[in-house]
Amino acid sequence: MTALASTTATQVVIVGGGPAGLMLSHLLHNAGIDSVVIDNRTVEQIETTHRAGILERDSVRLLVDSGVSDRVLTDGHEHAGIALRFGGLSHRIDFQKLVGASCWLYPQTAVFVDLHAARVRDGGDLRYGITDTEVADVVDAPTVDYTDADGSRHRITARIVVGADGSRSVCRPLIDQATQYFREYPFAWFGVMVQAPPSAPELIYARAPEGFALISQRTDTVQRMYFQCDPREDPSTWSDDRIWAQLHGRLAGHDGFELKEGPVLERTVLPFRSFVQSPMRHGNLLLAGDAAHTVPPTGAKGLNLALADVRVLAEVLDRTINKSDDAALDTYTERALSRVWKAQHFSYWMTTMLHHVDGTTDFDDLRQLGELNALVSSEAGSTYLAEGYTGWPQH
Amino acid sequence: MTALASTTATQVVIVGGGPAGLMLSHLLHNAGIDSVVIDNRTVEQIETTHRAGILERDSVRLLVDSGVSDRVLTDGHEHAGIALRFGGLSHRIDFQKLVGASCWLYPQTAVFVDLHAARVRDGGDLRYGITDTEVADVVDAPTVDYTDADGSRHRITARIVVGADGSRSVCRPLIDQATQYFREYPFAWFGVMVQAPPSAPELIYARAPEGFALISQRTDTVQRMYFQCDPREDPSTWSDDRIWAQLHGRLAGHDGFELKEGPVLERTVLPFRSFVQSPMRHGNLLLAGDAAHTVPPTGAKGLNLALADVRVLAEVLDRTINKSDDAALDTYTERALSRVWKAQHFSYWMTTMLHHVDGTTDFDDLRQLGELNALVSSEAGSTYLAEGYTGWPQH
Repeated sequence: MTALASTTATQVVIVGGGPAGLMLSHLLHNAGIDSVVIDNRTVEQIETTHRAGILERDSVRLLVDSGVSDRVLTDGHEHAGIALRFGGLSHRIDFQKLVGASCWLYPQTAVFVDLHAARVRDGGDLRYGITDTEVADVVDAPTVDYTDADGSRHRITARIVVGADGSRSVCRPLIDQATQYFREYPFAWFGVMVQAPPSAPELIYARAPEGFALISQRTDTVQRMYFQCDPREDPSTWSDDRIWAQLHGRLAGHDGFELKEGPVLERTVLPFRSFVQSPMRHGNLLLAGDAAHTVPPTGAKGLNLALADVRVLAEVLDRTINKSDDAALDTYTERALSRVWKAQHFSYWMTTMLHHVDGTTDFDDLRQLGELNALVSSEAGSTYLAEGYTGWPQH
Repeated sequence: MTALASTTATQVVIVGGGPAGLMLSHLLHNAGIDSVVIDNRTVEQIETTHRAGILERDSVRLLVDSGVSDRVLTDGHEHAGIALRFGGLSHRIDFQKLVGASCWLYPQTAVFVDLHAARVRDGGDLRYGITDTEVADVVDAPTVDYTDADGSRHRITARIVVGADGSRSVCRPLIDQATQYFREYPFAWFGVMVQAPPSAPELIYARAPEGFALISQRTDTVQRMYFQCDPREDPSTWSDDRIWAQLHGRLAGHDGFELKEGPVLERTVLPFRSFVQSPMRHGNLLLAGDAAHTVPPTGAKGLNLALADVRVLAEVLDRTINKSDDAALDTYTERALSRVWKAQHFSYWMTTMLHHVDGTTDFDDLRQLGELNALVSSEAGSTYLAEGYTGWPQH
C-alpha cells in the first residue's frame, strides 16, 4: 500500500470533470458548498473530443442564469425549429411558434470550456489527468483515492460522492442492489466532421428508404453530419466519395435542397444503445448523467439529461448539506428518473420514427411514413414533438 | 354451365352488404345512382355478430346528415373522452376539451340495422343469403354472378363493381398487380360480453404488467370487455372466474375503481393483424373497408375507416357517373390510403403503447410507462391522441 501524499477534506467529491461534474461543482459553489472535482482525462482531451451540439432551452438558461457564461448567447446559434425530411420534402417543426422555445447549437466542447473557465475563475479545486480512482465507504464516510501525474497517491474525504464519470463509470458498480435496464439497437451512426459551408440553418432529420441521416452544423466552415450504418462498420475504410454518396442519397428530394460538400475531416461510428440504472443513489453516493443512463443520440437528449440531473442534484445537496434535510437524498432517484424515462421514450420515438430497421416489412416502412405524415400535418403532434425536443419543464 | 334465371343491369354492383356496402348504396341513392347489393350472409347473421362499438365524430355525422337515421343520437352514448389506466390510476383524455369532438358508443350491429332499414325504406335492391359469387370483366364490362337461396343463378351487369366484402373478399384477388402489406402481432384479444352494470361511463384502456385490457360498454345490463391473450387461446376452456381474475388483475389500482362482475354471455378470441392492399382499384373495380385493409382493434378504427373509404368513394363515383369525370377513379387509391396509413399508425401506436410483448425487456416496460406519463402530462400529446381517436378530417 502506497503512503498518501495528501488528504483533502471537502463537502462533495465529484468523480468526473466533464460538463455534468463541472456544472454541479459550479452550482454547489453558488450554494456555498465546497467540492473537489477529479477526472482521469486531461482538460485538452475533453476539449478536443467532439460530442453533442444541441442544448435545450433550460440547459441554456442554466448556463446563463447560474453565471457560467453568456457566450452561448453570442457564439451559439439559436435554432427555432428543425426539419423532418421524408418523401423528398422537408417539413419544418417550428418550435418558437408551437411552444415558444428554441434550442441552441453550442457544442459540448464549448460548454466544457465555459464551465472550466468559470470554475477556474471561482477558485475551484479541479484535478485532471489522474489515474487509479478508488471510491470507498460510500455509505458511511466516503473516501476517494487517486494517483496524480507524478505517481503520488492522494485521498479526498467528503460527506457526499457524486459519480459524474460517464458511461464507463467507476462509481456505478458501487450502487448496491441496482437494476440495470438495457436496450440495444441494430444500427449505429456514422458521424463525420466536414469542411463545408452550412447546407441549412437548422438541423435536418432525414428518413429515406436507405435509412436515417442528420445534417447538423458547427461553424461557418465546418459541419457535423451523421447517417445510420451497421454497428460493425469500420469508418477508416470509408472514402470521402462513399460517405457523400450515402448522405446525398438520404437527402435527395424534389424541393431543390442542396447538400454542400467538402473534405471529410473526421469520421467515427457512434454506438447506439439505451441504458438506465436504478436507483441512482446508494448511501452518500449519487450518480449523474451518463454514469446512470445513456440515450441513443437521436433527439440530442444526452447532455441535456445530464444537466437536468445536476440541476436536481444541486438542489438535493443544498437541502442535505445546508439545511440538514436528511430526507432530501431519498428523493433524488425518483425525481431524476421521471425525466430520464420520458427522455428514453422520446429518443426511442425519434429513433424508430426515422430509422430503417433491417428485417422489417414494407408495412412498417409505410406505417412509418403514415406516422410522419400524421405528425407534420397535426399542430398537436408537432407541438408534442417540439415540447420533448426543446425540453420538458423541471420537476 | 347453369342457365341464368335473371340478368339485372345497374350502375354500381356492391359485393358485401355490411355497413360499408349499405352506406355506399345509400349515398349513391342520394346522388341518383342505382346500385344492387349482394351478400352471402343473411341479414340475421349480420345483425347478431358482435363487432366494434365506437364511432368517430364524422361517422356519426355521415349517418345523421345523409338521412340514414338519427337513432345514434338518441340510443347511442356520447363519449367525450377515454381513460388511459396505468400505474394503478386512470388518466382521462378529455376529447371535448382538447379537440371539441366526441365519439359515440353505438354498436356496429345497430349501424347495420339503421342502414338496412334506410335502404329498405328507399327501395334499395338488396340480395342477402346468396352463394358462389363470381366477379368478372372488371376492366371492361363488369358482371357479377351468384346463386340465390333456391339454387338459381343470376347475373348483375354494371358500370362499376365495389368490393365491400370484408377481409375474406372475393373481389380483392381481382386487383391486378397489387401489393399486400402485412404485420402480425404476437397476441390477440380475448373478448367477452358480460351481464353486468357498466363499470365506467367511458372506455378504459388499461396497461398492466400482465398486459392490456379494455373495458367497454353495450347497454345498462350488458358490457363488452377485452384482454390481451395468446392468439392460440381456446376461449371455450376459460371459466368465468378465470376471465374475471384476468380482468381484475389488469384493472387493479389505488383509486377505488371497481370492476362490476356478472355472468359471461359470450367469449371469443379476436385476431390481431394489420393489412393493406394497394392499389384499391383495378379498372372498374374498387375496394372499400376490410376488403382492402385491416387494422388491429386498439383504437377502434376498423368500421370508421370503412365508412371513410365509402365517403370518398361515393364522391368519386358521383364524379365518374354523374359528371363523366373519367379521371375521378384514378384519385381513389391515393385519397383513401392517405387516411388508411395514418390509421394503421394510430392503431399500431395505441397497441404498442398499451400491450405487453413477451420477450421484451424491463427497459421496454419502463419506457412504455415513460411514454404514457409523457402523454398524459402533455396537453399537446393528449390532443394528438384525441385527434386520431375522434378521427382526422376528411381529405
